[in-house]
Formats: sequence, structure tokens, C-alpha cells
Amino acid sequence: MGKDTAALAAMSGKLLEAVSRARPLVQNITNFVSMDIAANALLAIGASPAMVHAPEESPEFSKFINALVINIGTLSAVAADSMEVAAQAAQRNKKPWLLDPVGAGGLTLRNETVKRLLPYRPTIIRGNASEIIGVTRILGLTDNSAAPRGVDSTSSADDVEANAIALARHCQCTVVATGDIDIVSDGERIARIANGTPMMTRVTALGCSLSSVTGAFMAVGEHPFDAAVATLAVYGVAGEMALENAAGPASFRVAFLDILHTIRATDIHARLRTV
Amino acid sequence: MGKDTAALAAMSGKLLEAVSRARPLVQNITNFVSMDIAANALLAIGASPAMVHAPEESPEFSKFINALVINIGTLSAVAADSMEVAAQAAQRNKKPWLLDPVGAGGLTLRNETVKRLLPYRPTIIRGNASEIIGVTRILGLTDNSAAPRGVDSTSSADDVEANAIALARHCQCTVVATGDIDIVSDGERIARIANGTPMMTRVTALGCSLSSVTGAFMAVGEHPFDAAVATLAVYGVAGEMALENAAGPASFRVAFLDILHTIRATDIHARLRTV
Amino acid sequence: MGKDTAALAAMSGKLLEAVSRARPLVQNITNFVSMDIAANALLAIGASPAMVHAPEESPEFSKFINALVINIGTLSAVAADSMEVAAQAAQRNKKPWLLDPVGAGGLTLRNETVKRLLPYRPTIIRGNASEIIGVTRILGLTDNSAAPRGVDSTSSADDVEANAIALARHCQCTVVATGDIDIVSDGERIARIANGTPMMTRVTALGCSLSSVTGAFMAVGEHPFDAAVATLAVYGVAGEMALENAAGPASFRVAFLDILHTIRATDIHARLRTV
Repeated sequence: MGKDTAALAAMSGKLLEAVSRARPLVQNITNFVSMDIAANALLAIGASPAMVHAPEESPEFSKFINALVINIGTLSAVAADSMEVAAQAAQRNKKPWLLDPVGAGGLTLRNETVKRLLPYRPTIIRGNASEIIGVTRILGLTDNSAAPRGVDSTSSADDVEANAIALARHCQCTVVATGDIDIVSDGERIARIANGTPMMTRVTALGCSLSSVTGAFMAVGEHPFDAAVATLAVYGVAGEMALENAAGPASFRVAFLDILHTIRATDIHARLRTV
Repeated sequence: MGKDTAALAAMSGKLLEAVSRARPLVQNITNFVSMDIAANALLAIGASPAMVHAPEESPEFSKFINALVINIGTLSAVAADSMEVAAQAAQRNKKPWLLDPVGAGGLTLRNETVKRLLPYRPTIIRGNASEIIGVTRILGLTDNSAAPRGVDSTSSADDVEANAIALARHCQCTVVATGDIDIVSDGERIARIANGTPMMTRVTALGCSLSSVTGAFMAVGEHPFDAAVATLAVYGVAGEMALENAAGPASFRVAFLDILHTIRATDIHARLRTV
Repeated sequence: MGKDTAALAAMSGKLLEAVSRARPLVQNITNFVSMDIAANALLAIGASPAMVHAPEESPEFSKFINALVINIGTLSAVAADSMEVAAQAAQRNKKPWLLDPVGAGGLTLRNETVKRLLPYRPTIIRGNASEIIGVTRILGLTDNSAAPRGVDSTSSADDVEANAIALARHCQCTVVATGDIDIVSDGERIARIANGTPMMTRVTALGCSLSSVTGAFMAVGEHPFDAAVATLAVYGVAGEMALENAAGPASFRVAFLDILHTIRATDIHARLRTV
């Protein structure tokens, strides 16, 4: 393990322990598919999930939370209104918030919702490669084009690096693009995590749960870039550990959540790979 | 095992068998996080779940059900209207119904919704310690105050006993306050169940599923107090049995639901602890 | 194994491989209980799920999908509108679509929604015995009557065969009625699959996930009758294989989804039973 990788592993291990100590309260406005796995992942890692989503509740609840995660997976016009109210409250209360722009770049309502939410200044934007490219395209930062294909990515991680940097600079935030190689950029720095397993793409909403857990790390980390790197390190390493005990995607999901509960800094140190 | 505990265990075992025999139809208007685990817990125990929630359907469906469970977890203004329609139908049709006031005491919409629902006379109110204190505070029965913290309880079970009794007397219903020690009171009697494991708090919506299963026991039990005690006995003992086969919260959840399907009266008799 | 059964097994194995190769994009407008298991079943089998449900998105998304599945499980007036928009778009874009009429025959809103959706000509209607009888009753094709009982079937598979044939002829579609014996009819042909295990009825929304997976097979199959038979063959055989590794309904669910990921044509050939 190189010096840089060791430093990232040490930082990730410290944040992992900080989440478990601080038990940050993470509000999730997420899709109907991911609610169960997102809440369970947050509980496993030691955080406290709250799936409060109503526009009547978000402004009041915002004062109590440590972070907000907005995921546009099962979007509707009503849900988009809720998301805007919550993002606005987070900005007003200076709470960090993360945007997971599921399926961005494809359908009009998604693109318009992303455009409505970005002015409230997300702390982190987390998507797969094609979603990050989708957001840069919505903003006119690139002219890539790709047909939407559900929520699964069709672009390679290599393609997306320039898009991630451009988006991070434009939005002055941290951008995470997950794929075979996970990329994090805050516009200046860049990190590439090479852990994980393709089995992670066979469990629905595992990426959504990554966004929620990133919210917990973001709540305790000093810099969103570090929070994003640490979460990817934990997820990638946990994925590899879970694969050793899995007969298929469902037993993998069980093993993965179990390991989120038991993973320690030493596991990250032993297994983290950056490129 | 003392004489009283043995009597509660015998009663719990009988109700467990009665649920499996009668297969009560339990309507659940519950949150988006708990739908899966609530329905699976009801099926495991031998009951028949129905997640019918629309205000257009509840009045008609109410005639066919054996019990109704309302859980305000992922509340919205629209959902609150649905809940009132269903509670009203249950009262009109003399069907027992249970209120799970998730997060009560914290956010305005939750408090107002609880106030709207209580006049329809729930048979059982089931919450964690801070939610039960929250409801008594909404009703002006106590002057406790606590900041909301997601759906996790921050009060000890000891603190809540007086609140549970006061609430049971005020609402003329049975109150269940879960925690390290689970408390049941109908305003006169009190029972304290000491089974369970902290791992149960690391599985999202397990408490919500307890409410749904209490609905099934309430449908076959002669007295809601007995139904509540029996459900807590089954859940606490099943939790301890599941822990023996769990490597973390996700395998615990699997083992727990499996055991709900196979648990027998003899298991309750062997393990029930009251204080 | 008789000649006919061997032919169905061979056809089923080929479609299983075709789904995995083609990775069809299946849009699901399904109930809140089944979203997780439906998406995971589709991923396990090698398909690509999208839970896009908003009326604002369906017309645009319809151009990209390979099949649509509509399940009325947790119905509401708003959801019914969404379903009509999606069914209309599927018909316009000549995309195959499947209707899962959960609880049909019982509640007014369900019956009216089924009546609204049928004119858009579903490719397949998939329900349990009492739901298929319910639909024929809504259409005045039979005079059977049964009180609704949640989503669990109370009619035997034998009773429903005539109803399935009548419905298939009336709607000019393929009808699937699941039960101890699963029945498929396109109005002319009939197939009866005898695989499966009662444990499948103890896992919530497993039937809903069958509908979603039928959507994937329908997207790659030349005839909906074959797609339906192949899906039932895969599900029934996978259910029997999963039972060998299950201690109860939750470990059964895990084993079942794992096996959906690993099941091969040879498994179908070795185990398929028709009657």
C-alpha cells in the first residue's frame, strides 16, 4: 500500500469510528425502493436514520438533523416539491446535504428537478457515471448524450472523470461518480477507489444506500471530500468482504449489511486500493 | 419462573396458537420503510396482511378486516387524511385498532395527527418510551420535554411507566411502551417484559412490525392487555433466539423472521422474563 | 418427464438465457410492499428494473422500455391515474405490458381501476386464483362471488381454469392464475405447472415479483404464453430449490433470490412438472 493510500485508509477508519460515536441523525428523502436498505445501512454503520419527507415537516425537522440526503429515484411532481422545501431548509440551517440524481440526464422531470435543487447548493452530488454525465449535460457543461437506461450506468468510470471535475467546479461541491473505479473530486483534488465487486450492482438500491451513508460521514467529517472517500472505502471493502460469504445477490445483501455493522479501521487499512 | 410469569407465558402461547389458527386479516396503514417487514412478520406468525391505505378503500375494506394498525412513520398531510378515514371506519365497524405514534412529541404535523386520531378511540397505543411520553405531552398529561431524535428512543423504560399508566387511563385503552424493559398498562394492571436484545434496535422498522403483529394478536385476544403482553413475549423471546444465529443486523433480521414462523408456546415458557 | 413437459422445459431454459443476454428494461408501477423484492428479482434474473411511476414520466420513458408491469397492490386514486397514463403509453408505443390485478373482485376502486386499464389491452394478466375470478366477475363473464381476503387466494386452482380461459378469450391476452397448480391460457392453449412450495405464500409480494419477472420474459419471448410458462417454470423450480436451504420464510426469501441468480436451464429440465 502506497503512502497516499495508507493516509486515505487511516482517515477513512477515523471517520468510521466518528460516525459510530456521534450517531448523526440523517434525514432521507429517498425513493420507495431504497428506504429499507438505506435505513438499515445507516443503522448498521451506527447512524440514526429518519425518513421524514413531508414538506410540512422538513422545515421544522431540519433544525434537529445532522445531514440531509435527497434521492430522486421514484420521482413525482409532489415529491419534487418536497425535495425543494427540504433542500431550502438545509441551506437555511447550514446543514450539509447530498443530492443523488437518480436517472438524471434522461427524463424531463428529473432534469428539471435537478435544476430546481442545485441552487440550494448541495454539499455532495453522488451518482453513477451516466448520472454524473447527465447532470453536467443538464447544466450545459458537456455535450455528451446517452439514452436513459433505468438507473444502471452504461458509461465507464474513465469517461466520467472530466465530467466529475467540471461539475464539482461549477457547483463548488464534492462530486462522487461510482463505477468499477469510484471517483471523488472537489474540483481540485481527485481520488479513485478501486474496491468493490460487480455483485453490488445486482442488489437494488445499494447505491442509494451509499448516498445515505455518505450523508452520515458528511455529518461528522471536516471536509465532504474526505467523507465521500471514506464512505467509498468502507463500501468497497465491505463489498469484497461480503462476497466471501455470498451464494448470490440476496445473501450478499445480508452479508454486506452485517459487515457494515462489524467493519473496523483495520479492515480498511488491509484492503483499500486506490489507482 | 414465578407463578405470574408462568401464567403470562401460558396465555402468550395460547394466543400465538390462536393467531396461527384464525389467520386474522390485519389492515396496515404504515410507513414506506416498514411495509415489507410488517407484512413478512404477519405472514410469518400466520396472520394475513393487507396494506390497503387509500381513503377510497378503507371504509369499504373495514367490514372485512379483523384489526387495523395505523403507523405515522412517513407521515404527510395526505396520509393523515387516509388515517383518519380508516380510524373512523374501524370505530364505526367496531374493529380493534392500534396506533403507533412514530416520532410523536416532536414535529407539529405528527402531534396534530395524533390529536386527530385519538378521538376514534384506539384499542392499543404502541410506541417507544419517548413516543409514549410525547403523546402524554401532546395531551397535556405531563410536562416532560425532549427534542425529537428520529424514531429512536432516548428515554429509559423506567421514566415512561407513569406516562404509560396516565395515557392508558386518559384514553381508556392499553398502552405499550417498548424499551430495555417493555411496559404494558391498561390503566389498572401493569406488566414488564424483560426479554429482547439491543440488536432489535439495529433493524429498521422492527418496532413497526411489532405494532402490526400486535394487531394480529389483538384480533384474536379477549383483552388488548393480554394481546400486547403476548406479542411482546413472542417478540422478546424470538429476538433472543435470533441473536444466537446472527452475525450482524441483517442476518439477525432473517433469523428473527424465520423464528417468528417456527416459535412455539414452549419457547415462550422456557424463556419469558418479567420484572 | 413426458415429451410436452420436456419441450416446455427446453423453451423455458432458452428464455431464461435470453433474459440474461438481453437485459430487458422493465418499468414497474408496483405497490410499496413489492418494490424491493420485485427490483431484486429482476436484477437476480439479469434484467434491468426501473420503478418509474409518475404520470409526468411514463409517456416519455415508455419509448425506452422493453416491457411495463402494472400492479395495483397499494392502490390509490392518484396511483390509478398514473397507471392509466402508463398503460396508454405502452399501447401507443407497442410495448408489451402486464396487469397484476391485486385484490380484484373485492373493493370498488380496484374493480373500477381494472375496468379503466383493460381497454389498453394488457399482453398478460397475472393474478392468484381469486383475483382472476375477480376480474372475470368485474367483466360479467362469470357470476362467482367471494369476499375479498387481503391478497391471499381462497379459491383452488381447479376452480379458476374456466375463468382463466374465458378471460383470455375475452381480453385476447394471456392469463396466468397462480396457486398450487399454476395455470396459463391464451384462450386456446393451456399449461399447468405443478412446481413450487407453500412457503412461497409466506413471503410478502413474491407473487408481485413473479409478475415483474414475467414482464422481463415477455420482453424477450416471441409469444406471451411461452413467456408466462417459462417464468412459472423458473419460479416453481427455484422455490423448490430454495426450500432445501431455508429455516423459515426469511431465509427462504434470501435463498430464492440467490437461486434466481444462479438457476440454469438444466435445473428446469431436471425438475419441471406439468399436469
